[in-house]
Amino acid sequence: MQEGDSVDEYFRSYEELNVHHLMLDDNPRTFAYRKAIFEWREKFKNKVVMDVGAGTGILSIFCAQAGAKKVYAVEASKLAILAKEVVIENNFENVVQVIHNKVEDLDANVIEKVDILVSEWMGFYLVHEGMLNSVIVARDRYLKPEGFMFPSIAKLYAAPCQLPSFFDFWNNVYGVSMKCVGKKYRETKPLKPEVLTVKPQDLLSEGKLIAWLDLKEVSDEDLSHLGGNEWVFPCTKDGNYQGACIWFVVEFPNGSELPTSPMDEETHWKQTVIVLPSTIDVKKGEAIAFKMFLHHDLVNSRRYNIEFIMLDPADAEHDIPCSCNMPKCIVTRAYIQEHVNNPPISRV
Amino acid sequence: MQEGDSVDEYFRSYEELNVHHLMLDDNPRTFAYRKAIFEWREKFKNKVVMDVGAGTGILSIFCAQAGAKKVYAVEASKLAILAKEVVIENNFENVVQVIHNKVEDLDANVIEKVDILVSEWMGFYLVHEGMLNSVIVARDRYLKPEGFMFPSIAKLYAAPCQLPSFFDFWNNVYGVSMKCVGKKYRETKPLKPEVLTVKPQDLLSEGKLIAWLDLKEVSDEDLSHLGGNEWVFPCTKDGNYQGACIWFVVEFPNGSELPTSPMDEETHWKQTVIVLPSTIDVKKGEAIAFKMFLHHDLVNSRRYNIEFIMLDPADAEHDIPCSCNMPKCIVTRAYIQEHVNNPPISRV
Repeated sequence: MQEGDSVDEYFRSYEELNVHHLMLDDNPRTFAYRKAIFEWREKFKNKVVMDVGAGTGILSIFCAQAGAKKVYAVEASKLAILAKEVVIENNFENVVQVIHNKVEDLDANVIEKVDILVSEWMGFYLVHEGMLNSVIVARDRYLKPEGFMFPSIAKLYAAPCQLPSFFDFWNNVYGVSMKCVGKKYRETKPLKPEVLTVKPQDLLSEGKLIAWLDLKEVSDEDLSHLGGNEWVFPCTKDGNYQGACIWFVVEFPNGSELPTSPMDEETHWKQTVIVLPSTIDVKKGEAIAFKMFLHHDLVNSRRYNIEFIMLDPADAEHDIPCSCNMPKCIVTRAYIQEHVNNPPISRV
Repeated sequence: MQEGDSVDEYFRSYEELNVHHLMLDDNPRTFAYRKAIFEWREKFKNKVVMDVGAGTGILSIFCAQAGAKKVYAVEASKLAILAKEVVIENNFENVVQVIHNKVEDLDANVIEKVDILVSEWMGFYLVHEGMLNSVIVARDRYLKPEGFMFPSIAKLYAAPCQLPSFFDFWNNVYGVSMKCVGKKYRETKPLKPEVLTVKPQDLLSEGKLIAWLDLKEVSDEDLSHLGGNEWVFPCTKDGNYQGACIWFVVEFPNGSELPTSPMDEETHWKQTVIVLPSTIDVKKGEAIAFKMFLHHDLVNSRRYNIEFIMLDPADAEHDIPCSCNMPKCIVTRAYIQEHVNNPPISRV
């Protein structure tokens, strides 16, 4: 224990290290970055890179291993002290410069402009934690105009889903009926979104793109409200509509990606769900519609408030074509089908 | 939301329900109780039962399903309100009486003596949470002299183990050496035992019985200090001695048990480990020795302080016979072997 550190601080630091252990141990996450960086080796070679929120410095070292000339590893927390040791342990002290500071507080006269801005800034349902705003500051101050964001694109998806652990589970708990407990459990639930693993078979429809962020262009203003459109989901199976499942995908400039959907290998982000107060039975082909907004909390900038509005699918705007079984969509599909099969004969 | 309940209280109550969901969803745990109760059906039939710390009331209902005449389901928390609803939902309101109170505060003139005292009181490394003391109060006040504790026996085991997530993991994190982070991680660790899943192949020896509790007889005094002997563990394989793994087993009067060792199906208790500051290489046949005490915390009665003392196996008392490769144990084994193979001929 160092002088001046209380046991409390030590525990905090352990908890912090524990979180980093969890993140490093998240194979799909760390492998996706490593793969993307290594596959883009020729672009990293002799380039200047900044790693925003470097943590223990692993992404900075990947960049150095890929041939970067210089990496600024910016880390605001005490982890920066450890990151410095990691850099030395891997003999990259001539390449990676750990900067123990907030990226917002750096002296722009001291740091050169960079070619690539690397960051693992994603939180639950992409934007929880609000770290992307710091990445935007770094981009605007330090990224060359022709530089690259790494990742470069982020996409947020949603789909209606079943939530057996919130509903069916309580109907028969080892032969005991606990519907009243399930009801109470759900009543206390919609106050905050839940992070959990949704099984692929519990999705009731394909995901729809709720928000699409070009990280080279996105602004704080863009991030203050995400989503907000109406989405219509044609059910791909019979089931119980019990919630909305949210996940994200980020894409790297080399074309590879880090997906976190129920169909992909589980990451520490899992999925995020909005739990409905009660079950709605749905049939294959039936349409489910909702609006979803994510509002950046004005008081706590690390938080988002998620607004979820169920819509009557009859009033919502459907895709064209839409695979649901509402008469207007059946007619539209038939019309399109006819014109695809029997295109007007050109009279040349 | 009920009048008078703040959002904070609601969150607490959700967290509480979440813990109960986790426990109910712990299959080996809930099935072990259900199996033990149902297999002992003839003993539950027409008997009076008390369930101490009934939670949502599931064990009380199992007892009612098994034919109990009367079940007192004692629950101090607000969950008692839900337990009452669960009882009604399962049509056992004539059998199960939910009592919303601490078992210590019940009026002994109102509650009759019971034949069987059921409780799921076990915490991490058996005694964390200190709920057993309340069970002892209930036993001394309400269990008939010829009555049964359910479970009836609890055993605490320990064995030396490897802890790859604390050691090997940091040697090569996706091609990056992070030994310095691992060192820091471990330095902050021994302050409290860690709850995690130990793989069977990471045990370096068979477990030894650290404490054995006959729940019909055990006293608060017995619980104030558990363990304290010297234990010698002959290694069953080459490996890295990096910690001590602790687990427990409880036994029911019907002979079935609920085990939580690394060899058994995972429960929410997982295992508890004491992490060593550094790795010690060991070879098959080599002896590892330590003392382990669990002291009930005088200030916070829900806690135990674990004292772990590494011993020189040369100075420790070995089993007779002991399968380690120290000369005295080899000689003892040879001596016993000779006398088993060539017993002295009786000169009749």
